Amino acid sequence: MDLKQINQPSDIKQLSIEELKTLSEDIRSFLINQLSATGGHLGPNLGVVELTLALHHAFDSPKDKFIWDVGHQSYVHKMLTGRTKDFPTLRQYKGLCGFPKMNESEHDIWETGHSSTSLSAAMGMAIARDLKNKDYSVVPIIGDGALTGGMALEALNHIGSEKKNVIVILNDNEMSIAPNVGALHNILGRLRSGQKYNWVKDEMEWLMKKIPAVGGRIATVAERVKDSMKYMVVPGMFFEEMGFTYYGPVDGHDYEDLFKSINYAKKTEGPILIHVITKKGKGYKPAESDTIGTWHGVGPYKIESGESMKKSSSGPGWSKVVSDTLMKVAENDSDVVAITPAMTVGSKLEDFKKKFPDRLFDVGIAEQHATTLAGGVATQGLKPFLSIYSTFLQRGFDQVVHDICRQNLNVAFGIDRAGLVGADGETHQGVFDISYLRDLPNMTIMMPKDADECQDMVYTALEYKKGPIAVRYPRGNAKNAPKSDKFKKVPIGKWEIIKEGSDAVILTFGTMIDSALEASEKLEQEDISVRVVNAKFIKPLDKKMLLNIAQTNLPILTVEEHALKGGFGSAVLEFYEEENMVFPYIQRMGIPDRFIEHGSVSELLEEIGLTTDGIVNKLKDMVPTKEKRA
Amino acid sequence: MDLKQINQPSDIKQLSIEELKTLSEDIRSFLINQLSATGGHLGPNLGVVELTLALHHAFDSPKDKFIWDVGHQSYVHKMLTGRTKDFPTLRQYKGLCGFPKMNESEHDIWETGHSSTSLSAAMGMAIARDLKNKDYSVVPIIGDGALTGGMALEALNHIGSEKKNVIVILNDNEMSIAPNVGALHNILGRLRSGQKYNWVKDEMEWLMKKIPAVGGRIATVAERVKDSMKYMVVPGMFFEEMGFTYYGPVDGHDYEDLFKSINYAKKTEGPILIHVITKKGKGYKPAESDTIGTWHGVGPYKIESGESMKKSSSGPGWSKVVSDTLMKVAENDSDVVAITPAMTVGSKLEDFKKKFPDRLFDVGIAEQHATTLAGGVATQGLKPFLSIYSTFLQRGFDQVVHDICRQNLNVAFGIDRAGLVGADGETHQGVFDISYLRDLPNMTIMMPKDADECQDMVYTALEYKKGPIAVRYPRGNAKNAPKSDKFKKVPIGKWEIIKEGSDAVILTFGTMIDSALEASEKLEQEDISVRVVNAKFIKPLDKKMLLNIAQTNLPILTVEEHALKGGFGSAVLEFYEEENMVFPYIQRMGIPDRFIEHGSVSELLEEIGLTTDGIVNKLKDMVPTKEKRA
Repeated sequence: MDLKQINQPSDIKQLSIEELKTLSEDIRSFLINQLSATGGHLGPNLGVVELTLALHHAFDSPKDKFIWDVGHQSYVHKMLTGRTKDFPTLRQYKGLCGFPKMNESEHDIWETGHSSTSLSAAMGMAIARDLKNKDYSVVPIIGDGALTGGMALEALNHIGSEKKNVIVILNDNEMSIAPNVGALHNILGRLRSGQKYNWVKDEMEWLMKKIPAVGGRIATVAERVKDSMKYMVVPGMFFEEMGFTYYGPVDGHDYEDLFKSINYAKKTEGPILIHVITKKGKGYKPAESDTIGTWHGVGPYKIESGESMKKSSSGPGWSKVVSDTLMKVAENDSDVVAITPAMTVGSKLEDFKKKFPDRLFDVGIAEQHATTLAGGVATQGLKPFLSIYSTFLQRGFDQVVHDICRQNLNVAFGIDRAGLVGADGETHQGVFDISYLRDLPNMTIMMPKDADECQDMVYTALEYKKGPIAVRYPRGNAKNAPKSDKFKKVPIGKWEIIKEGSDAVILTFGTMIDSALEASEKLEQEDISVRVVNAKFIKPLDKKMLLNIAQTNLPILTVEEHALKGGFGSAVLEFYEEENMVFPYIQRMGIPDRFIEHGSVSELLEEIGLTTDGIVNKLKDMVPTKEKRA
Repeated sequence: MDLKQINQPSDIKQLSIEELKTLSEDIRSFLINQLSATGGHLGPNLGVVELTLALHHAFDSPKDKFIWDVGHQSYVHKMLTGRTKDFPTLRQYKGLCGFPKMNESEHDIWETGHSSTSLSAAMGMAIARDLKNKDYSVVPIIGDGALTGGMALEALNHIGSEKKNVIVILNDNEMSIAPNVGALHNILGRLRSGQKYNWVKDEMEWLMKKIPAVGGRIATVAERVKDSMKYMVVPGMFFEEMGFTYYGPVDGHDYEDLFKSINYAKKTEGPILIHVITKKGKGYKPAESDTIGTWHGVGPYKIESGESMKKSSSGPGWSKVVSDTLMKVAENDSDVVAITPAMTVGSKLEDFKKKFPDRLFDVGIAEQHATTLAGGVATQGLKPFLSIYSTFLQRGFDQVVHDICRQNLNVAFGIDRAGLVGADGETHQGVFDISYLRDLPNMTIMMPKDADECQDMVYTALEYKKGPIAVRYPRGNAKNAPKSDKFKKVPIGKWEIIKEGSDAVILTFGTMIDSALEASEKLEQEDISVRVVNAKFIKPLDKKMLLNIAQTNLPILTVEEHALKGGFGSAVLEFYEEENMVFPYIQRMGIPDRFIEHGSVSELLEEIGLTTDGIVNKLKDMVPTKEKRA
């Protein structure tokens, strides 16, 4: 069967199990081949080939609603819904999105990217279905990792208490992104402990030994009771307690087992959870043998060896600069601990974990807990470094407000993936954190221009004793490795002029500094002399420097890789208003008031004009304008 | 024992159980008396008298760490730690806070207000204790309602997987604020359902009937197995599965039972959960018989009858105006559904619930789920109204960004308690929502000036088809009841001049409009003529009106009961920058960059100068300044 001829799910409805098996292998080969060129979430998708085929075979999408939690495992679903031909553009600018996307297909009825949202969405759809007297199945597919996110547990609690028909597919591959953590995960592997249960087990064993003596019927029943006792200490109990019918475990690579479970689910009234065991990376050796999450999402690779074909970049990854610094500080300071919500690999904390296994806390996908945990740690005099992606810190927002900023606790935030993230697209862009953090009392926010400054800022954050402080840093690599291996404190709220100029001033920070410097150089050729300021502190601002600039009456351009609404530029506007002075001529560049889709960061910056040329043109407009205004 | 002579926990250490019982009654009388004058969280505190005394008797605060989840049940703790004398000032300006407060006592080692944070904080403290080789108990006290908040479940999952000693006191009063909802709650009351468990039960019954015949030892064991089977389907199982030693249930009003459980907990290695059953309102008839949460938090009341002594205000509560409107719209439109996270009473949705029991979804304390649930409902063409306090929407922030705004779903947000909330203080002020919502693409935000406009805005929000839309409204009462019973749509993004003036313009909205009008009238006597604009849309702004104002070159004063950083005034600054024009003379009034404590709203507004006189003085400065500038 030519994969490209599968245009809708009905094209596979008549396939036998043998044919489905063949198709599964074709799909696997396709994915392994395609992703070797484009990169993408290989591991998760190889794991759900049979599951996805079985679901589309047994249900009727889009009437029946598939909700792919996180959504990076929706590639097979995309292939079965007419998008196989688009895979060469996967995760590229204007190309196929790496997550479900409503405007790509009527079969994508809910968009994801962040984890743990599917159960809430499913419950919403089930409510609507019942109120409107419609008849369809609602089928959220959620991983064991995503299940520990607080909102998924909130939703389980709600769904479990209602009688509505929701078919939850628990896709258990024993990994979230990295290996899974937490009690829910452990439930799978261990028996209950504690006095009372030991007592039960002992008594049962004694009973079991005795009963067979009375023979016949009782012996059989005793065996079954024994089985059921065993059953009662496996995870099903947890879900049954939560109000679900539990069915499992099901072999997620066995069609007969899958169809049996789906048929059972269709006949069951009320919420049911099907516990499907899958193998991440199934069918591709290098990915199958991955134990730490390397093959979760990948760049291009050599098919034979699995070797990465990542272009070598000049400098180390920003995350690595941060974690190396963290490790060096931690060597001399036993108070330093690191906290991450499931991002030990993503945030390059593996070495820290190896070196200080009792000082790295990977709490799983649980950003709210991670944030307040850092607060708890801080109250007892330790120095917590909460390493968290900008987009995921949104999950811990209330905890930042209510627990950290309000109590003014000494928590250092490492805000990873700040700014545009590229291929992951609009669900993952880290372009709101300045807006949502800057308005919080007690918060300090900074961003480094290079690896050396990054080291200093991480060090500064750890040593800071006056409340919460955040260092934000982008995805990708720094231009150069750090030159120094000594760290110094960055004076809080002080900016730096990195290029002098007499016609205008650019206030910028982080990733945009290079473009600003280039723009300034280009403008020199047109006799426009532009000062470039590294506004490394986003809060507090450098008031002295801002007042100075105002006195010289130079036009000001703020440039930031962040939403314009409420961002750094707005802080500058607010400052001049607060000083109750005649406004300097200010213009702001940044990200407009819309969500930015996927593509390379440079393509995205181009699209929104946040480039060297964009800055050049803006300043060429501003400087004459200033003269006209004078 | 004179209550006022208890200055620290050691003052009660030597008391016998009989003496503790007497003291309990004294404390109850004191609370019932005191709170009849000041108001406060009576129900929760009457419920934990014995529990609090037992904890302080058995542990050694502040070495041992008590963490009061939500914290409204910390009154008895406050009394035992030297603050009895301060109760006449409870929840009043500069008086005793209604929640734990570090600057009040060394015994308040973690501040709360929002729910479900205690377990994360406790885990943080346990981590710090073990890393620093210290020896103390960490004792979070959490209600059954707060336990369903996602972050508490995230924390349970983390704590349960570690071996650290944490003693969780589950204070189960079968209520959160209103009666509790959800599967976790149901676990307490019902047996498991579903095929497999029915099979087990049936077989067990058959087995039980048979076994006694073989006599002696087996019969006893069978009885014990029977007991243990029963045990296995009670809630303990849930917590044991999560990795806790479960101990309970314990009678929370019986000192012997309490001490026994605490002693057991002290000897237990690893995390333990003590399930304590208490009665909210214990010892005060009107509060004991409360089934819907009326006595959770109260104003002054008559002790005999329990009758409220609330001063009658002229208009209805804002929440009531909103819910009445919602109900009227829902009568004619079966697509309207209401969602609330545990605030059926607080947001006055009882009548809606009575009238449309299948269209009101109280999901318990679960703001993340509530938000995305609304999104799921919206995808299927229903019209969800998510009624949620401003301060609690912080919990659903990522869901607003990622699920609602990004997918541009038609969810109507009723943002209750927007602005300063008064007695609940800094944990509950709703003064950040404009900053954190305004930067989100697709979001519309409005605020009414009076009850009629409020009706129209709720109606507009429900009819709006272009994405998410929020109507924010304050705590307390509107000045007048709505005059009209017909609703009309408010034109999106259009402001209204409600008083003309030729020397300056005030842009304001919601609660500050009256002060602005009064200020304008006062200023007339000084020959300053001030225009007052009802800037009812915070996003989008009324661009046409803003351009008009700029053309007339009038000074502009923005006034908002919201944080200045990133607030409405900043949006106005941004607008003029975006238009690339010479800035008008703009000044902003609002809430400064610090957390605002408790007190009456008028006292708090006075403190920060957000008053009629404040506006008058500001404009008196601005208008001459403007002349100097001309």
